[in-house]
Amino acid sequence: MSAGRRAEALPDPLDATAVRRRLHRRPEPGFLEIETADLAWGLLAGLGWRLRGGGELVDVRDHPGLPSRDELDAAVRRAAAQGVAAASVHRFRDGNTAFVAELRGTRPGPLIAVRVDMDALPIQESRSGGHHPAARGFGSDVDGAMHACGHDGHVAIALRAAALLSDRRFAGTVRLLFQPAEEGVRGAAPMLAAGLADDVDVLLAVHLGFGTPDGCVAAATELYGTSKLRAEFTGVAAHASGAPEQGRSALLAAASAVLGLHALPRYATATTRVNVGTLHAPGAANIVNARAVLGAEVRAGGAAEHDDLERRARDVLHGAAAMHGVTVDVARTGWATSAATDDAILGRIETLAPGHGLRLLPPRPLRASDDATLFMRHVQERDGLAGYLLVGAGTYGPHHSPTFDLDEAALAPAADLLAALIRSW
Amino acid sequence: MSAGRRAEALPDPLDATAVRRRLHRRPEPGFLEIETADLAWGLLAGLGWRLRGGGELVDVRDHPGLPSRDELDAAVRRAAAQGVAAASVHRFRDGNTAFVAELRGTRPGPLIAVRVDMDALPIQESRSGGHHPAARGFGSDVDGAMHACGHDGHVAIALRAAALLSDRRFAGTVRLLFQPAEEGVRGAAPMLAAGLADDVDVLLAVHLGFGTPDGCVAAATELYGTSKLRAEFTGVAAHASGAPEQGRSALLAAASAVLGLHALPRYATATTRVNVGTLHAPGAANIVNARAVLGAEVRAGGAAEHDDLERRARDVLHGAAAMHGVTVDVARTGWATSAATDDAILGRIETLAPGHGLRLLPPRPLRASDDATLFMRHVQERDGLAGYLLVGAGTYGPHHSPTFDLDEAALAPAADLLAALIRSW
Amino acid sequence: MSAGRRAEALPDPLDATAVRRRLHRRPEPGFLEIETADLAWGLLAGLGWRLRGGGELVDVRDHPGLPSRDELDAAVRRAAAQGVAAASVHRFRDGNTAFVAELRGTRPGPLIAVRVDMDALPIQESRSGGHHPAARGFGSDVDGAMHACGHDGHVAIALRAAALLSDRRFAGTVRLLFQPAEEGVRGAAPMLAAGLADDVDVLLAVHLGFGTPDGCVAAATELYGTSKLRAEFTGVAAHASGAPEQGRSALLAAASAVLGLHALPRYATATTRVNVGTLHAPGAANIVNARAVLGAEVRAGGAAEHDDLERRARDVLHGAAAMHGVTVDVARTGWATSAATDDAILGRIETLAPGHGLRLLPPRPLRASDDATLFMRHVQERDGLAGYLLVGAGTYGPHHSPTFDLDEAALAPAADLLAALIRSW
Amino acid sequence: MSAGRRAEALPDPLDATAVRRRLHRRPEPGFLEIETADLAWGLLAGLGWRLRGGGELVDVRDHPGLPSRDELDAAVRRAAAQGVAAASVHRFRDGNTAFVAELRGTRPGPLIAVRVDMDALPIQESRSGGHHPAARGFGSDVDGAMHACGHDGHVAIALRAAALLSDRRFAGTVRLLFQPAEEGVRGAAPMLAAGLADDVDVLLAVHLGFGTPDGCVAAATELYGTSKLRAEFTGVAAHASGAPEQGRSALLAAASAVLGLHALPRYATATTRVNVGTLHAPGAANIVNARAVLGAEVRAGGAAEHDDLERRARDVLHGAAAMHGVTVDVARTGWATSAATDDAILGRIETLAPGHGLRLLPPRPLRASDDATLFMRHVQERDGLAGYLLVGAGTYGPHHSPTFDLDEAALAPAADLLAALIRSW
Repeated sequence: MSAGRRAEALPDPLDATAVRRRLHRRPEPGFLEIETADLAWGLLAGLGWRLRGGGELVDVRDHPGLPSRDELDAAVRRAAAQGVAAASVHRFRDGNTAFVAELRGTRPGPLIAVRVDMDALPIQESRSGGHHPAARGFGSDVDGAMHACGHDGHVAIALRAAALLSDRRFAGTVRLLFQPAEEGVRGAAPMLAAGLADDVDVLLAVHLGFGTPDGCVAAATELYGTSKLRAEFTGVAAHASGAPEQGRSALLAAASAVLGLHALPRYATATTRVNVGTLHAPGAANIVNARAVLGAEVRAGGAAEHDDLERRARDVLHGAAAMHGVTVDVARTGWATSAATDDAILGRIETLAPGHGLRLLPPRPLRASDDATLFMRHVQERDGLAGYLLVGAGTYGPHHSPTFDLDEAALAPAADLLAALIRSW
Repeated sequence: MSAGRRAEALPDPLDATAVRRRLHRRPEPGFLEIETADLAWGLLAGLGWRLRGGGELVDVRDHPGLPSRDELDAAVRRAAAQGVAAASVHRFRDGNTAFVAELRGTRPGPLIAVRVDMDALPIQESRSGGHHPAARGFGSDVDGAMHACGHDGHVAIALRAAALLSDRRFAGTVRLLFQPAEEGVRGAAPMLAAGLADDVDVLLAVHLGFGTPDGCVAAATELYGTSKLRAEFTGVAAHASGAPEQGRSALLAAASAVLGLHALPRYATATTRVNVGTLHAPGAANIVNARAVLGAEVRAGGAAEHDDLERRARDVLHGAAAMHGVTVDVARTGWATSAATDDAILGRIETLAPGHGLRLLPPRPLRASDDATLFMRHVQERDGLAGYLLVGAGTYGPHHSPTFDLDEAALAPAADLLAALIRSW
Repeated sequence: MSAGRRAEALPDPLDATAVRRRLHRRPEPGFLEIETADLAWGLLAGLGWRLRGGGELVDVRDHPGLPSRDELDAAVRRAAAQGVAAASVHRFRDGNTAFVAELRGTRPGPLIAVRVDMDALPIQESRSGGHHPAARGFGSDVDGAMHACGHDGHVAIALRAAALLSDRRFAGTVRLLFQPAEEGVRGAAPMLAAGLADDVDVLLAVHLGFGTPDGCVAAATELYGTSKLRAEFTGVAAHASGAPEQGRSALLAAASAVLGLHALPRYATATTRVNVGTLHAPGAANIVNARAVLGAEVRAGGAAEHDDLERRARDVLHGAAAMHGVTVDVARTGWATSAATDDAILGRIETLAPGHGLRLLPPRPLRASDDATLFMRHVQERDGLAGYLLVGAGTYGPHHSPTFDLDEAALAPAADLLAALIRSW
Repeated sequence: MSAGRRAEALPDPLDATAVRRRLHRRPEPGFLEIETADLAWGLLAGLGWRLRGGGELVDVRDHPGLPSRDELDAAVRRAAAQGVAAASVHRFRDGNTAFVAELRGTRPGPLIAVRVDMDALPIQESRSGGHHPAARGFGSDVDGAMHACGHDGHVAIALRAAALLSDRRFAGTVRLLFQPAEEGVRGAAPMLAAGLADDVDVLLAVHLGFGTPDGCVAAATELYGTSKLRAEFTGVAAHASGAPEQGRSALLAAASAVLGLHALPRYATATTRVNVGTLHAPGAANIVNARAVLGAEVRAGGAAEHDDLERRARDVLHGAAAMHGVTVDVARTGWATSAATDDAILGRIETLAPGHGLRLLPPRPLRASDDATLFMRHVQERDGLAGYLLVGAGTYGPHHSPTFDLDEAALAPAADLLAALIRSW
């Protein structure tokens, strides 16, 4: 266990490796990023950035993708035990970890926003000697949590870029959108609803890895739109032997829905995906089941297909409930859309990248989802520009695996390119 | 093939064996009983009974359980070819084979009705030498049709009893309800709707066989209520490769419904049954299926359970359609209820049976359905009496099998007991 | 919380109410009955009965219905905290709560066994003032556990009968079979496998309640045979978007099995039941599910139907796994058979009951299961006699509900009748 | 109805429009192309081509995709009634409509094969005045059959090209593969098995339409591999009320399979398709269903994915049967693979097309299947070249619709290009 950070000095934000390691040791899953937000907030405050956060800025109170009350409270206790100041804990508690840092340049110009995701995954990190963070002593010291998708690196890149840009030698305004809960595509929607992208002219997001070769940068394609659905079926319990006819089985409805969801059609017009990944139907073998909760996702490579597929998924859920005389409550716990990088941004990168030792590759398929796309599409629909950039980082182990790691040498060039790109407007 | 009946004399109605053999050779499935009705009508006319029939008496025009137009027309051609008089063919065509024969006794008294079912089954009769009708030359000469449930015997019993009662030495009025389409429990409902049981004081039905020992008579129990449901799902066809997302699969909905129907619960309060026996979903492997028609039944030993089970079956059908974005049209093609014989009738039989060489056994479970129960329940609800009697007839082969046969020696005693029972009021 | 029983005197075994209340306060679910067994063992030792128990007598080590390791260990800690002696805790730990008490009468005679079930249910007891145990201060002080099926009363009856019989004025030998885990029908099978019913001539079981009128005793009918099945499907996880084809969904297999199990047919030859009550498929919405565990039961009113139904249920489970390319492991966590009380026993009760203020009613349907039937059938198959007796106990609230209670006035008469019945041989 | 062709002169093979109209009037579904084969054979014989055909050349006797005996016999009667010579009827009867025409050029060179599909579809052609074939009097006069995919045009193109090439001014040998039953991808496999593509150096196939612009030619992409599966489930019939437990429902198994097949996963590595298009489960509502036959297809854009998907589809079918205690027989009635046109062929076309008024477009997605791909892949695997060419033909109405038609002006240029391409080697 960590000895607490009270004794630790704040890292230099230009030292992306130090920042990343600090974060790597303290991974926090979605909406629980109190220590992470506190560290970033503190460094940015020191750099003179204007900071806004807390429940007044972004409302997540009724978010169906929020962790449980117990998990939220445990995060508060954990952060406090690590020495996070009470005011900071108070600001970021209850899922309110989203915050915004802004700096105005010396010349007028566009509002350029960078989405920075902060959350870790509920995965137990490898402690094997072959796993670099374990060997170097910065492996996760939070049981069952791990930065296994590189968001620690994303925050480190953003903070180094912020340090570079603190000279204010750029046009317009830079806004860093520190987003919780990218995993489960949960955190962007409430930030978008709070209007944080309404006035944005350029929206950028950076993601390390995904097989991008070292020293390379590329726009991501096949960023699928997705909806994460939680369906809770409520039936009527009854003794399965003494009065089975009085029951209404929530589990039968859920099982019908599982098959019906997986039978949703392929689309000729776009890539789609459907998966039911979880089902919990507690009770007893001799009782007609009264409660079943399933977790599913749909994905689509096009917005119209995404809408259509989600509508049909909901039809399946409601129809399955009706079949078996039960009710169902469907909540969308996560949401992303499909989006693509504007050519205008790629043009700038092609020009700038070599100066930072990076090479622009042709677009690469991600075949996954990221709710940065919600910001991207929103900005593009208002005639702004958006880009989602993959940066090679010599990753080890697959994303979301206990042995995932990244080559820290990729952090500084990525940050430098990001700062240069911002300065290019 | 038959040479036509033009050359045949009418049988003596007292000769139940002759009548039964005549009918056995010319089996007619439900609503197609033109030759059968014509024969019975002719004999009863000769006995002086008052006769009513045709579409004016009982309306079956929109009955969802009616045979196809082709089958109805073929029955007309078949009957005409057999020499049935044109007026008779006209009366009984288009499914209008139900008719009523009535005779008033010499003394005032109750209205006693007897349900007489006339239809055969769509089964090819055995032509093996071991099968008595084949060996004796009265096997079915209608391809694909057979009296495999003894209704030929039921008509023969009714006609002998009618001949005996033609002396009018009884109190009140006797009404014979010649019912089409007992198979599929289709024929009683329109007769009931025509008011033919509204004024009935005593309702009797006789069924041969069902394992009743020879020389015995017993009331039937476990006469289950049943609904036969036909559900037609209509989806949207689409090329399964070029545009699968444009389709809505009727077959997926039907398959979900098949599983959902079979998952309907057992009831602790009554015996129930559910079965989906047929499904037709035409089309092509490479086209999203647009039409699927299933045939199902539910049964229950109690009226409340029957209602509940049918309601839940309809919920399954409509829910399955909603799941898959298709429509469904549900029709009840057949219907019977549960019913039991009144003790008062059993008391009379106990007294009378020995005089006709028969012995009353304790009630015997039928574990099946008969829409005579619709008449029974209707009469009982108006404070009348009803009885459903099984008479042993030394049957061979299971009911509804190609080798079913009955011992004709049972016919006369059954008719004589029936006449005696009617005279007992 | 209880202050521990160190300060409490042992109750008088003749005082069935005191014993029952003592047990009621300390409910222990199946295989965790350490305090319960310790109390009964202590009192019987005091009465001079010969006692055998522990893992050497009955082997439950590989029982698939055993609680988890955590639950077993927690029960040990709880009992120790309550002051149960270390030797006793050691004897009854790890699910080894089954034990046997025996006493030889003064005359030779049969071996008469009484099945005594001891376990409570995982139900939170009502603390409302209208609930008698709460009002009188003997409500459960074990969170989430409750004697909601009257087994506390069963132990109290057995101990009072044992006290009465301690005079040894009976023929033969009396054996009390203290059985754990009747709930889930888990505890009898290992005791049977240990040979504890092999030499038994008469097997008796008593159950309070089930709607039996006060002051009455009756044999139970419709004691269904049952199997409780736990099926664990193991698939292959894969990213649901990036590589769905590499996954094998355990949840799809489980959902297919749920529908397939509920579609198992009704039987015309016996009452049957099927229910899937629980399903747990953990994971994430964006991962192909790799593990799904369901809990199901089948029941039948006849032994052949029970065997057939379980075989078909296993076919469904294995077929569903094969459909989806996953494996399944099926364990029978609980098992009971169908059985009926011998008339010879009812005859004795008819004679004896009035002497104890009780009246013998005609047999009453239980429509449930009890693994006492395993002992009963075993004894009957070896030409012994068996009886399962319901005794009216003025119960409140349904069995297995938080407000279940019983009228303690029923305990002494039931014990006295049991003792008298044993003395009658 | 046609007056028979006895009075008709043979058309000039160079007159592609006349040939096409002659064929259009006499559409013959797969394996029934007797009149079609007879006409082509006759014209080619007149042109001096070497002809081989009949059951000795290609064995289709056990082909699971063959029409029924009744359909095969009806085709013989129909052809004979049209005046097809007895020897020709004999050659092409029983599904033996495949044949091969060969001509050797004057110089040595490669063996160049052209796949020519001949079959029509079971569709009733439109008789509306707006439908050109109806207005011009060459609409189908075979009830329920229609050339709705342009194969009449394909034969006409092949015959004009054959007429042009009859001068033998080409290198090597030309082999025309007249293939039955492209619809349902049934006809190529037995021809391949007969070795007819073993020695082929260049394999060409031409398809009209599919949205290719007029005056254009393009290679097809997204030619999916496919398997058409026919699964026949055999259960055990039983009375659904009297003895449901004795039944084994084939329909339950089929319904489970329908859902299981549609739940087969999407693949990240290739486009896939799954569809169950037909299901026939005859019987009666009150009988446990004993026979259910479904027709399904799987498709995949890659060969490995095709194999994997078919294997998993078979797992579903067999698992579903096992679930419900029935047997299943799975036959592959049709089969195609995925394939792509070689660049070397496209290069030649680019050079030649303008000379025939045609323009080469970039490859166009077909998103469908054609068993010409079996020949293509076979030839390519032996280092030969293959091409599948789409030619614009101003089509009206969708392919496979009652109003499909094509612009006959496209026929001659397509034939001329084909001949020129062959001469280019």
